[in-house]
Amino acid sequence: MKAVVYRGARHLGIEEREPAAPGRGELGISVAYTGICGTDLHIYHGDMDSRVGAAAIIGHEMSGRIAALGEGVTGWSVGQPVTVLPTRWCGQCAACRRGNSHICHAMDFLGIDSPGAMQSVWNVPAELVLPLPEELPLDHGALVEPVAVAVHDVRRGAVASGDHVVVVGGGPIGVLIGTVAQGRGARVLLVEPDPTRRAVAGDIGIEAVDPAAIDVAAFVADRTDGAGADVAFEVSGAAAGVATAVEVLAVRGRLVMVAIHPRPREVNLHRFFWRELELLGARLYQRDDMAEAIRLVASGAIPARQLISRVDPPEAATAAFTALEGGGVMKVLLDWREGNR
Amino acid sequence: MKAVVYRGARHLGIEEREPAAPGRGELGISVAYTGICGTDLHIYHGDMDSRVGAAAIIGHEMSGRIAALGEGVTGWSVGQPVTVLPTRWCGQCAACRRGNSHICHAMDFLGIDSPGAMQSVWNVPAELVLPLPEELPLDHGALVEPVAVAVHDVRRGAVASGDHVVVVGGGPIGVLIGTVAQGRGARVLLVEPDPTRRAVAGDIGIEAVDPAAIDVAAFVADRTDGAGADVAFEVSGAAAGVATAVEVLAVRGRLVMVAIHPRPREVNLHRFFWRELELLGARLYQRDDMAEAIRLVASGAIPARQLISRVDPPEAATAAFTALEGGGVMKVLLDWREGNR
Ligand SMILES: [Zn+2]
Ligand SMILES: [Zn+2]
Ligand SMILES: [Zn+2]
Ligand SMILES: [Zn+2]
Repeated sequence: MKAVVYRGARHLGIEEREPAAPGRGELGISVAYTGICGTDLHIYHGDMDSRVGAAAIIGHEMSGRIAALGEGVTGWSVGQPVTVLPTRWCGQCAACRRGNSHICHAMDFLGIDSPGAMQSVWNVPAELVLPLPEELPLDHGALVEPVAVAVHDVRRGAVASGDHVVVVGGGPIGVLIGTVAQGRGARVLLVEPDPTRRAVAGDIGIEAVDPAAIDVAAFVADRTDGAGADVAFEVSGAAAGVATAVEVLAVRGRLVMVAIHPRPREVNLHRFFWRELELLGARLYQRDDMAEAIRLVASGAIPARQLISRVDPPEAATAAFTALEGGGVMKVLLDWREGNR
Repeated sequence: MKAVVYRGARHLGIEEREPAAPGRGELGISVAYTGICGTDLHIYHGDMDSRVGAAAIIGHEMSGRIAALGEGVTGWSVGQPVTVLPTRWCGQCAACRRGNSHICHAMDFLGIDSPGAMQSVWNVPAELVLPLPEELPLDHGALVEPVAVAVHDVRRGAVASGDHVVVVGGGPIGVLIGTVAQGRGARVLLVEPDPTRRAVAGDIGIEAVDPAAIDVAAFVADRTDGAGADVAFEVSGAAAGVATAVEVLAVRGRLVMVAIHPRPREVNLHRFFWRELELLGARLYQRDDMAEAIRLVASGAIPARQLISRVDPPEAATAAFTALEGGGVMKVLLDWREGNR
């Protein structure tokens, strides 16, 4: 079988490996599609070498079919379509004890801290496997994990029907947040400088504006009768994005911090005080978010077809990663089928 | 009658004024005590000249007794002890329409935007007057307004019994927040560099530590089994205070932003993301907070006697303001009684 292996900064290997049978309590999954996300790009750039070991198999967005059941595993059948919740928590740390296992201080993230999905057959603990509906195309199934991120973010923001929502940053997660929020009945405005991304957003029915062309805060104030937005999502990772997200909010508005800001950012705390704003960090997802994401992808609420920009064979992994970092694409998938290569 | 008048930066006048009868819908209050707060100091320093007019009567923390009822006012009797909710809202702006009248965009704050309490007789709209229990000493009654700030802040932080709470900044509001939080059954740690303030806190049963002497985050981690604090209050207004408040929090911990930070501050947004922290701005109080504050002061839950550092006659207003800016004191009151001077 094949595997995509991280060999060091900007160096992926496509290796031939001997398939292993699933261990006790594990399911062997014949991988169909894997997605490449911003975290995978970070790994590829060498930014996560302290967590990602040498010759590590990466990848955590995927779909596939059960290939084999390990010892002691019941309730599954070979051929069943599935996806994976790629997080293993310790159950004992302060976060787990508080019921926030998705923020476990000793998190084992599959595809980062332990072998990931970019291999023909992936053996994972059965308790992390979630069934997919039989009628769901497997390429769409590979979007469940990023959709779960968006579901979690929108839940953190408590987006309600009729809310005005501003999403700052129009990459895949930003667009998915916008889609999920619209599904809840919110009116969404996406703020994104890149015209290609704005076009993709427009194609799937999300209104997108260029922050270089308009005064976003004035635009939002105008459309909300001077009130401002109920919820903003900062997904850009840029200092300017933080400022915009704070500026557009109404009294008691909520800012969900989705992006990773490696360095501290200047924040207008006076406005937080003055308007009683709220800032809510949002990380990963919980099992319920994955279940909701499966429902949304299966129901067609997520425009999966428009969001998948390209699909490459594993042999073209480097080209796929390069395409993603070049921008102008949304989701890029690797296709592991064809006798599972 | 007498009045304390702001004449310009660092210049207070004690003026003799002709008392006016309360207008239609107003109550005339014979003022007993007024408190001086940080906002009054800001006015005194000339920092709020854009809002505070020339020859303005300042002051918004007070207690007194009804002296006269204006036309159309019923349900009150002369001699009744009262305090005042010093905020008038417009009822029509975006904040008011959303039910957040305490953040009204057109707020008329008595003692800032319109005549305040530092006068022998204060005429205020009857709907802003709240009765005080007859048995409550009137000097204690002058603490109701700052206690309402603390009640509001603690409510914003959703402090629950058993919570670990860190209050950064041990001025009057910080100490009151600590007291109110302890009243809810929280375990409170106050962080304050000034030894006098730590001593006052210690006297009223609040544990206080010096951030220059210990590693506060390590101290809190140690006492919480590695988890961190459930709620932190930033009351210091200092950049270091923001950093400490973020650093001590447990997963999903809540940081209540009480202090005014005129300039943007660097905030570790990565930690907000990583731990799913929450930042909650908290401003002023709502009517319910005042009612709760009256209950707390009247019940003795607030150690009013220990918190009142000095009481001066109005003629000594400048000395009282100077004492407050010198530090080392908690609440400073002016005493308007004695035939209401
Ligand atoms: Zn990812
Ligand atoms: Zn854990
Ligand atoms: Zn005040
Ligand atoms: Zn208003």
